[in-house]
Amino acid sequence: MAVYTDVSFEDLEIFLAQYDIGSAQAFKGIAEGVENSNFYLTTDRGAYILTLYEKRVNAGDLPFFLGLMEHLAARGLACPTPVPTKRGALSVTLNGRNAAILTFLQGLSLRSPTAEHCAEAGRALADLHRKGADFRLKRANSLGPKGWEKLAADCATRADEVTPGLAALIAEELPAIANAWPNALPQGVVHADLFPDNVLFLNHKVSGLIDFYFACNDALAYDLAVMLNAWCFEADGSYNLTKGRALIAGYRTVRELEPQEIAALPTLARGAALRFLLTRLYDWLNRDVNALVRPKDPREYLRKLRFHRGVSGAEAYGI
Amino acid sequence: MAVYTDVSFEDLEIFLAQYDIGSAQAFKGIAEGVENSNFYLTTDRGAYILTLYEKRVNAGDLPFFLGLMEHLAARGLACPTPVPTKRGALSVTLNGRNAAILTFLQGLSLRSPTAEHCAEAGRALADLHRKGADFRLKRANSLGPKGWEKLAADCATRADEVTPGLAALIAEELPAIANAWPNALPQGVVHADLFPDNVLFLNHKVSGLIDFYFACNDALAYDLAVMLNAWCFEADGSYNLTKGRALIAGYRTVRELEPQEIAALPTLARGAALRFLLTRLYDWLNRDVNALVRPKDPREYLRKLRFHRGVSGAEAYGI
Repeated sequence: MAVYTDVSFEDLEIFLAQYDIGSAQAFKGIAEGVENSNFYLTTDRGAYILTLYEKRVNAGDLPFFLGLMEHLAARGLACPTPVPTKRGALSVTLNGRNAAILTFLQGLSLRSPTAEHCAEAGRALADLHRKGADFRLKRANSLGPKGWEKLAADCATRADEVTPGLAALIAEELPAIANAWPNALPQGVVHADLFPDNVLFLNHKVSGLIDFYFACNDALAYDLAVMLNAWCFEADGSYNLTKGRALIAGYRTVRELEPQEIAALPTLARGAALRFLLTRLYDWLNRDVNALVRPKDPREYLRKLRFHRGVSGAEAYGI
Repeated sequence: MAVYTDVSFEDLEIFLAQYDIGSAQAFKGIAEGVENSNFYLTTDRGAYILTLYEKRVNAGDLPFFLGLMEHLAARGLACPTPVPTKRGALSVTLNGRNAAILTFLQGLSLRSPTAEHCAEAGRALADLHRKGADFRLKRANSLGPKGWEKLAADCATRADEVTPGLAALIAEELPAIANAWPNALPQGVVHADLFPDNVLFLNHKVSGLIDFYFACNDALAYDLAVMLNAWCFEADGSYNLTKGRALIAGYRTVRELEPQEIAALPTLARGAALRFLLTRLYDWLNRDVNALVRPKDPREYLRKLRFHRGVSGAEAYGI
């Protein structure tokens, strides 16, 4: 929810001269995205998002992210499509940042998705997995089990500031999850952050998936585990089995889950909860007073992690 | 540059049912406006801004602000027009805030307006003055000389944290400006904050004036003095006489200045500089660590104030 890097009209005019998309008619910084600066742009040709990639996005990863969106859009997935410059580049430099223009998608994200929305979103995830299968670039998941260890080490001495006992719980969870972590599940391109914020709906149908800046290669079922965490818990911390069932069933209408993926679901869900607990904890402890974003409460994911610790089989998720 | 109050899709759907503008197709919080929460909204009928009025906007002033925009737009001034609900209300409640839907204007604000842009903007200001002449509601300028005294008192003990000697300078300026302040100039509706941020351009012509939330009744020439401060100084603090001349000449193509207005310009410009120095100083000293806006540097207006102190006549501004 921020614009970290300003772009003046004068900067924009020079920037747009590199593209063949007409001249600007409206330009507004938008309060969206924790990682980057985003602007809504309309020209006489259409509506776009201009993104400036800030420090958290590694420049070396941009060909993967932008290439993936181009690949998926070409296969009919509704996602932002990078607009190439006249010379064919998908990203260029603007005010010292890498920047790209992407097509603007209609639709609104939901705060409180229903079971029907969960089914639609699950189906969209499987569609992404299917259409990403032949994407040729690779990117490791920097927020997989190895990444968690580093985050946990960085937070260890101060974790208990958030909740007493949190450091010990994390120290216990890390090896437990690592030991149980499945390494032979079907792999592919995963979104890895498909929260309700990142799914747009129009008339109760998915109209677009956005924010591919955590996408990577990993177990496909891990993506489903991220979604079970993000879509199927209520504000009071309870797991909504109806939503979980709908989300999984929606996914399976497009891509069937293998028995080993189903068996691994409790571990994957527990790992996904730990991942978001750790990144939120890190951001909470290292909040920048000049930041324009309020950090999210890590304790939400602590409650989810505790739920997963008590789960003995995938049935608990509605499978 | 902020969204202080969140609006979910679910909130929005209920809210929009009160209006006859179709259903939402896109909805983005926008990083614009220090005072309020703003969202860009498109429906199948058009593009709008949804504004939630935060604490700094007094609910009792909304009929003035919204009525003024309606009045001006009806007379052909390009400014946001409040969209009435089905029952004819210009504002309703949303998430505990007063809220209004306004039409969205195309155009972009400029960081570095040229003299030609200054002439256009000056002309637009005079047009606003002419078209506002028969608006019947009244609102006193809460940031006139009386308001400065209160701000100065609130900042007095800490002003020197920003620049040594600042408290003494303010204490000297307040009575000097108050004694010279003209009270018999032509009055009318003024925008009172027509910075380059608030003037939209398309193809080098003014396409809209926005952000009427400081508008009030005051001396018309005070509005011109605000603009000379905001449009005609360079980043190094120097006054650009060519821009000043263009702005004033643009204004006079629509509304002639009376001799007493011209004579008062140095005092009005000095007062306007003090007004923005004081509000920026207050915001700087009282910055909220949870705010999503970086306060602006008050020293920019200290430099401008010093320039005006050295001015002996309106010629110095390009008249």
